[in-house]
Parts: sequence; C-alpha cells; structure tokens
Amino acid sequence: MANEAVEYTVDFQPLGRRARVPAGTTLLEAARQAGAGLNAVCGGGGTCRTCRVRIIEGSVSEPVEVEARVVTQGLRLACQTRVLGPVRVDVPHSSMTAPQRAQVEGMERPIEFAPSVHVYDVKMDPAHLHDLRADSLRLRDALREQYQVEVDSIDITVARELPIVARRDGWRSQVVTHDGDVIALLRSDVRPLGLAVDIGTTKVAAYLVDLISGDTLGATGTMNPQIAYGEDVMARISYAMQDAANGRKLQEVIVAGLDEMVSTLCQKTDRSPADIVEAVLVGNTCMHHMVVGLPVSQLGMAPYLAAVGEAIDIKARDLGLHLAPGANVHLLPNIAGFVGADHISMIIGAGLFDTQEVTVGLDIGTNTEICLIANGRLLSCSCASGPAFEGAHIHDGMRAAPGAIEWIRLSDGKVEYQTIDNAPPVGICGSGILDGVAELRRIGVIRPNGSMDVKSHERIRLTDEGPQFVLVPAGEREAPGDVVITRKDVNEIQLAKAAIRAGVEVLLAEAGLEDQQIERIVVAGAFGTYLDIDSAVSVGMFPDLPRERFSQVGNAAGIGAKNVLLSRRCRQRAAEIAQRMEYIELTTHPDFVSLYSDALILP
Amino acid sequence: MANEAVEYTVDFQPLGRRARVPAGTTLLEAARQAGAGLNAVCGGGGTCRTCRVRIIEGSVSEPVEVEARVVTQGLRLACQTRVLGPVRVDVPHSSMTAPQRAQVEGMERPIEFAPSVHVYDVKMDPAHLHDLRADSLRLRDALREQYQVEVDSIDITVARELPIVARRDGWRSQVVTHDGDVIALLRSDVRPLGLAVDIGTTKVAAYLVDLISGDTLGATGTMNPQIAYGEDVMARISYAMQDAANGRKLQEVIVAGLDEMVSTLCQKTDRSPADIVEAVLVGNTCMHHMVVGLPVSQLGMAPYLAAVGEAIDIKARDLGLHLAPGANVHLLPNIAGFVGADHISMIIGAGLFDTQEVTVGLDIGTNTEICLIANGRLLSCSCASGPAFEGAHIHDGMRAAPGAIEWIRLSDGKVEYQTIDNAPPVGICGSGILDGVAELRRIGVIRPNGSMDVKSHERIRLTDEGPQFVLVPAGEREAPGDVVITRKDVNEIQLAKAAIRAGVEVLLAEAGLEDQQIERIVVAGAFGTYLDIDSAVSVGMFPDLPRERFSQVGNAAGIGAKNVLLSRRCRQRAAEIAQRMEYIELTTHPDFVSLYSDALILP
Repeated sequence: MANEAVEYTVDFQPLGRRARVPAGTTLLEAARQAGAGLNAVCGGGGTCRTCRVRIIEGSVSEPVEVEARVVTQGLRLACQTRVLGPVRVDVPHSSMTAPQRAQVEGMERPIEFAPSVHVYDVKMDPAHLHDLRADSLRLRDALREQYQVEVDSIDITVARELPIVARRDGWRSQVVTHDGDVIALLRSDVRPLGLAVDIGTTKVAAYLVDLISGDTLGATGTMNPQIAYGEDVMARISYAMQDAANGRKLQEVIVAGLDEMVSTLCQKTDRSPADIVEAVLVGNTCMHHMVVGLPVSQLGMAPYLAAVGEAIDIKARDLGLHLAPGANVHLLPNIAGFVGADHISMIIGAGLFDTQEVTVGLDIGTNTEICLIANGRLLSCSCASGPAFEGAHIHDGMRAAPGAIEWIRLSDGKVEYQTIDNAPPVGICGSGILDGVAELRRIGVIRPNGSMDVKSHERIRLTDEGPQFVLVPAGEREAPGDVVITRKDVNEIQLAKAAIRAGVEVLLAEAGLEDQQIERIVVAGAFGTYLDIDSAVSVGMFPDLPRERFSQVGNAAGIGAKNVLLSRRCRQRAAEIAQRMEYIELTTHPDFVSLYSDALILP
Repeated sequence: MANEAVEYTVDFQPLGRRARVPAGTTLLEAARQAGAGLNAVCGGGGTCRTCRVRIIEGSVSEPVEVEARVVTQGLRLACQTRVLGPVRVDVPHSSMTAPQRAQVEGMERPIEFAPSVHVYDVKMDPAHLHDLRADSLRLRDALREQYQVEVDSIDITVARELPIVARRDGWRSQVVTHDGDVIALLRSDVRPLGLAVDIGTTKVAAYLVDLISGDTLGATGTMNPQIAYGEDVMARISYAMQDAANGRKLQEVIVAGLDEMVSTLCQKTDRSPADIVEAVLVGNTCMHHMVVGLPVSQLGMAPYLAAVGEAIDIKARDLGLHLAPGANVHLLPNIAGFVGADHISMIIGAGLFDTQEVTVGLDIGTNTEICLIANGRLLSCSCASGPAFEGAHIHDGMRAAPGAIEWIRLSDGKVEYQTIDNAPPVGICGSGILDGVAELRRIGVIRPNGSMDVKSHERIRLTDEGPQFVLVPAGEREAPGDVVITRKDVNEIQLAKAAIRAGVEVLLAEAGLEDQQIERIVVAGAFGTYLDIDSAVSVGMFPDLPRERFSQVGNAAGIGAKNVLLSRRCRQRAAEIAQRMEYIELTTHPDFVSLYSDALILP
C-alpha cells in the first residue's frame, strides 16, 4: 500500500517530456501524462505493438508474453511495461503520433556554435565639418578601432544604405560580415537571423534560426511547388531540357516558394526577412542545380554529371531570394549527379562525420543515397529505388498524408492497420506497403519470388490484372472500392528494396566488409524515419542485424543545414566529406547486377 | 638650286603623323601634307597666331618679327617656320583642328602592361563514364594542372554556362579570372576586351581596349543623358533627393547610356559586349555615386560626404550593365565629396603620381579639382568655379560645339575670331569667353575691377543691362542678333578664375611654397585643353610662369581609366593616392576668403 504512493519521474527522449507517476503506472499512461504522444492502435491491449519504446535506463517490470517478439529487438511495449523507479525512455519515430513526429523532425546533436557570419555592434564617428571621411571609411575605421577587424569589401547594397541608415540610427549599427565582406547593417535592437532549408524533390522544410543564441525560432514545411512541372527529378529535368525558359521557370517557382516560407516563418515569429543575413540550402544535386539556376541537361544523360561540385556562396539577390539584400546563401558540395548536397548534410546532421563505428547511412527516396563509413574511408553510391516508397506506381498508393495506411499487421486471419491522423483509410503510403509485403510474406501469402499463393488467404481474389490482397474492403470505408495490394505492387517493392540492398552490398564489398560487421545503420528522411525496421529487414531491404544497431534520425539533412548555418566547423567538415568521399557508380560496377538479382528474393 | 631638291622628314607629335618635304617648306604646309590638321585662321599670314607649335628637335629657320610674342613662350608659328633639316614638332591641343583634337583626346604614357584580369586557354578533360567529376571541378583541375592556378570561386553566371559551353566547344575555353574568381569563359578565337569610361557631368567618353595587346580598338563620346534631369551636379542631387525613384532613374539613364556606347563601340569594331570582361569607370564623386546607385543626399549638404571612399569592385550585373555576365566593374577611390575618382584618374593618366617636380594638376569644370604634388606630399582641394567655362551663365554662352567662338583676338580696332569647325558663329564657348575677357582687358576696355570703359572702343554699347562689347554684329552672321560680351559675363569669369587661383594659392600656402616654385602646371579636361594659356595667365587664373611649365593633357581622366584597366600597378597607385592625399576644405580654410578677393582682380 505504502509502496503504491511512491512517485517516480519518467523522462521521454528525444521529446524531452517528463511526468511524475506513481510506481506501477504503465509507460503508456505516463506518456499520456507527459504529453508525449505514443501510438496505441489497440488501445493498450498489447496486440498492435505500435507503442514500442526503448528503455535507456531505470527500473521497469519484467516483459510479459505478448512482448516476446519486441523484446528480441531490444524494445518494450509501453502499454505492458510498468514503472518501478525513475526511468529514461527513448521513443522511436515510428511509435510517435503524427503531431508528435511533426514536432520532432530530426534529432539535434551538439555542435560547436560559431556561425560564418560575424556581428559587431559598432559606433561610428558622426559626420562633422572637420571630419570629412567618406561614410564607408568611417565604418571601416570604427570596426578596426573597436574590434580590430579589417574588412575586404562592403557589399554594394550595404554601401547604398549606409549613409541613410547611419544618419537615421545615430551612427550606431550592428555590422554583419561574412568572409571579410560587410553584408548587412541591422538596427542595434534587432537579432540577426539565419535560414536553413532542405529542398526535397517532394517536400521542402525550412528553419528560422537566431544567429546569436543558436535557437530555432520556427520551422515550416511545404510541398515543392516544382511538382506542378514533374513528379520526380527525371520528369523535371526533361521539362527543363525542352526549353531554356522552362529551366528558368523551375528556378522561379522554387525561389518564390522559399520566399513564401520565409514570409510564413517571419510572420509567425514577428521578424523581418531583411534580418536574415545568411541561408544554407541543401538538396539533391538536381534540386541544388535548379534553385541556383544551373543547367540540368548534363544531369539527365550519362554520365550524369553535376555542373558544380564544390560548395557555392552566392548573394541572395543573385538567386532572386528576398532576405537581407547582401545576405549570403551557402550551398553544400555535391558528390555526384545523384549524390548531392543533401547527403553530405545528412552525414553532418546525423553526426556520422567522425564516427569510429562501421556505419551505413541511407536517405531513402525515389533515389536512395547510401554511404559507408569504415576504417577511415567514406564511400557512397546512389541507387534508383523508384517512387514505390512514396506511394507512386502502387495500385492504391499515396503520399504520407492523412488517411494513408502507414502500418499493417496480419494474424489469425485478422487484418489490422493504422492510418495517418487516424483518418478513414484513403490508400497506402510507403511504410504501409512495406509492412503489407512483409506481413503477407510472413504468413505465406507471398512466395520468395514475389508471386501470390491465391489459396493461402480468404482475402485474396483473382482479377484480370492478376491476384490482389484486399486490405480494406469497400464496405469498411467511405470512399468507393477496396484498398488492395497487388502482385505488381509486390514487384515494385521487390525492385525498390533490391536496389537499396544491392547498393549497401556493393559498398561493403568495396570496403572488404560483411553485413554483420556493420555496427550502425542510420536511416534518414521521411519514409526512412517512419518505416518499420522489422518489416524492412524481413523483406531483405536491410541486413538482419540486432535492432539496436539501427537509428531512424528524421530529417537529418535539414538538421545538417542548420548545423552548417551555425557552425563553421560543420561547413569545413562538409568540404572535407566532399573531398574524401569515394563515389561508386553502380550502373558500371561489375558486381551490381548479380547482387541486385540476389536481392530481389523475399527471404 | 640643288639645295631646294633636298627633302626632310617632319614628324608631328603627339599625332604621330609624318611628311617628307623639300627644305624651305613651312611647317604649316608640311602639316597639311602629313594630314596633321593645324589651325590657321588667317590663312598663314602670321597674324592670328593659331598655328603655334613647339620644336622638339631639328633644324628650322630663325624666328621672324610677328613670332616675337610666341617665341617667348617657347613656341613658333608653323606658318612662319621653315624646314632646314629633319624636325620633330609638338602640336599643342589648342593648335589642332577640331577633328584632329577628337582623334587625340589625351596623351598616352607608357605603363606597365598587366591587366587585373588573367586569361588562360584551358583544355578540360571531357566528360566520361569513368571520370565523373563535376564540370566545375574539371575546370579547376585543368587550371591547376595546366597553369598552376588555384581559383577561389567560379562566378555563378559562369557556372551556369559552363556545362553548355564546355560541351559545345569541345572542352576548350579561354578562362578569364579576376582576383581568384572565374568571371568569364570565352571561345578560344575571341579576344577578351576591356572598357574604360570617363563619366563627366556633361560628357561621357568610352574606350574599348584589347586586353591581350593593350590596343585601344575604338573610342566614342556622348552627352551624359542625365542632363535631362539637371545641368550640373547640384541640380541632379536636388532631383535625386526629391524622391528615391528619381535616384534610381538617374542611375538607369546613365547605365542605359553606357550600354548604348558599348553597343556603338562593338558595332564599329565587330565585337560583342559579352567579350568585355572588365570595365573601369571614373567620374566625379557625384557621377560615381549615381552610376553605382549610391545615395547622394549627403553629397548635397554640408559637410558634403562621399558614401564610399575606397575603390569598388562590383559585378556588371549589379549595375545593370550588359557586358560579360560575370564581368567586374572597377571604380577608383574618391577623395572627398567634391574630389572624386576622376581626379585620381587624372593624376594617373597624366603620370603625376611619382613626379619629382613641384606640380599643380587642375581639372577645370563647374567644379575644379586641384592637386599639388610637392616634397612627397599630395594635397588637393575643390573649388566652385561655376559653369561659366562651360558657356552657362554667359549672355551668349554655349557649349564647345560647332559654331562656338573658341578663339578671339583684338588688335588695331580689328576683331578676329575662330569658331569650332569654322561654322557660322552661334555663340561663345569657355575658351572664347576667356580669350575675350583677356583681350578686352589687354586693350584697356575692361578695368582691373571688371568694369567696362564705355568710351574705349567703338563696339561698346550701353543697354539697360549695362555695357556690352559687340563681338559679332548681327549683320555678320545668319542667326538674328549680335554676339556680345557683357559686363556680367566679365564678372562670371572673374568669379570663376578667382576660385581656381585661390584654390591653387591655398594649396601652395599649405605646402609653404610660392607661385614661382611651381615647376609644372598640368591642365586637364576639355576646357583646360583648349583654353589659351596666355589668356588664362593674363586674367590671373594661373600664375605667370614660363610657358613651358604648362602642359595641356586632354582627357587625362579617361587615359587614367584606360591605364587602370591595363595595369595593376596603376590600380595600386590609385589606392595609394587616395590614402596619401591630404584634402583641404576651402570653405572652412582661414585664408581662402582673402585669397579669393585678391584673385578677383584682373591684372
């Protein structure tokens, strides 16, 4: 009795939420009290296994029978685990509710805070009949006398406003420099801001950062407006190649999109775009080229070359971007035509640069970039995994949006699924179709070669297009028709996962390593964060390693962009990564085809 | 007899024209044969003294009586001087015919040829399935391997065209760099060009230069299109201050004017503006600020400060100028609000930088900039000489255009004059009004205080506005009315010349020197080149020094701009001049007012 009155603190990471709960409370209940939204499809009955968590430290109850399968993965079910002392809990992205996920887009790691821009609060000598120095020299002299700083140049847009601003503000100003160039003058009561953007082919994520404190003031996401001109990279390259005006159009719409995001972020935080003095943009090589206005035709045909490999510093005005008029825009280096600045940013953001472990990093999309860090070497490749994981080319596929089936479990003839935002089922997104294929294979509906055993399940029906598994019968939802998984869908997933697995295997072979020597697999990006590692392993996309070797790190490319905005050290690292990276071209690699055919099998 | 058959070469400088003529031929006749157009108003009778030349070396006839006055100035009359052996003759600007003058706008001096831009003929490794470097890295590697050159950056406009140009031109290109930045790619059969421009308040002069040979390919001049918004600097500053849009308008029209000159020059020489990889612009501080788009309001009120003092390097695109997209535009430093980049350029162009002589340099205009170089010091000032020398505020004043009376001599009741292009007289330009005042004073019509003795000459008449001297009676010309010189005109010239003289005297006093210690007076600019030194001395504008100490150097500011385009050494010198120059503000100088009143007297 006395024992039950004792309370303990439960700390949920990486959400940073805590609750004090009586001993014996389940972690699921504790999470509710802490405001750390955990999935719990079955309502806490131990059957759906969506509330999986990892105990970092502390005392909890012994595993019960329904947890057997998750325990082998180093996990526990929050609904079955009771607090027996202070506990620290790690909540995987896949266990978070959708609103929670949106909050935690990526795991931030400590970096050395030292932005590339410097800010000096400067008092200039006022103009006077006996002091006839030009305004520009007055500014240079003040910087020299007050900060021992000698600048090389004053951006023309700054020179244009200096006489007006200096007289308006009583000859006092925050002087912002970048690489010896005075790029902005800000009133002394204004905080200089930075912008970090991850331009994905589908989605764009932007962060507004305080460059003095390093705090993230706001984040926003939107669809890439270029989608109107082509779903994927290749469609957009073809569009750009049709006419030079098309290429300019693609640049205009993405820049206008960025301007709009800046405006949204500034409105939310009551700031002005004119206070943004530096931006860091990352994206795949094609997105990178398109936002900068570089040609992409050479990206569209063999040997698929980037126009620019090294990092770029460009004035915001040269992009048509409306920040401080002299603001610098930094773009990280590209490694190859299909391994771009966003992959380097992912390596930075996930902290893989100086890891001593044999590490594989993946950013899964239509194009999947993979790197292997091992024994001082950095290897990378790119594989055409196709759009299946984004829901394209799948019979009832859709993007990860409300109503998308994102989780599927099949057992005892029962079909369980979960949709995003618990909305009525509309279709299946990437993590859903991966689960579906894994589960159908596990219960024997699908054979290792991907064909369906039409007699193995009552939900299978034969159509003109081949066999289909009915996931949601028409009667169970509002929209017309069934939601199905087809033989062709299975094939799409086979092709996609085989490409990824073959890529990993080629890199391992190049480094002379075996699967089991991988000490860490870091999976980044939206799909990579929400996919079920068990399902991915069971279809053979990833090698079957102890589950604690996997991390799903969210939008590491976006985090990397923020890191590069805030830390010169990270910017240097990016350059070093680009220089050291050995790029392996899969299409001409002698072992690729055989590794690829082996990987098509569903184990 | 035999002697007359002997022929000698006569060499006219700085025109560079030669003729072989029989011994005994006059220099005037020799000049005609050589195509070196000399003025000869009286037709070779020895009375007009317009054909004055300086014998550099060689054997000529003894001076005759009518030459007495010019001989004291170290000169001869070409119509009276006969060839007795090979002769080298220097033709002052004031003795050249107008078309000839246009050809020789300034005297060029040898400079160390080493442009700021570097040009490398580069062969890049072609794209290949087994060489997947980005195009930009291919370019950097080729520069490193073939020229041991490491560039810092590739201009974004170059990066944008590199993939297309490299593939089109078989991976060979002329790579143009400026200060570590790749600013242009040119086809290997194209000559990289430079542009030098002197932006005067009234006139703009532009030169197209081959940056490999250093040759001037073409020159062109035009009126400053900003004239539509104000005749002089102050009027334009007021216009700009009325509205921010006005300032932009002034920038737009001058940039459009420059674009037009570029287009004219390129058409004449069959070149492309896209081959111009660097431009050097000089102008007074106001013209400098207006072309760059810097604010001018602080130039329009005390203490009249420049926005930017140091040299500026700016991308042509940031000015809206249509050259090679990445071309650099260099602007020399400004010394003060009214001593601008054009004065530094004049010092460079006239070769005054490292002179060991006590030298005064003047650039006469509405605003006259004066420098004194003496004992290792560089002093400068600016005086408000007003627009009289440009024909403004003068009763029948006009700009130096066809029909302007540019030369006047009065003797024995006779009135002789010469107009530009020998056109019928329209009005009087600066050098004409200066001559007129000097001659009227010499023959006693004008008293030392500037008043007119109404009984001293039959051509004087009294009007409601005071006495006038009728230079051209209405009957002698096509246009209606007389061309007159009024009492007020004399006053305008007094004010103008007094300001200039007082400026010279203040600088001499600052350096502890006397008039007679000046070893050289260099007079630059259009009016300065065409004025009659005798007249200028006789009205007291210049000290009365031996005439060989004077040089009239034409558009030295334009030449200086060309020098800076072609020679890094000259660019450095400009920076050194700006740094060393001691600017003396006349309006607050204790001695200025008394020196100015003294200088109002006509000696």
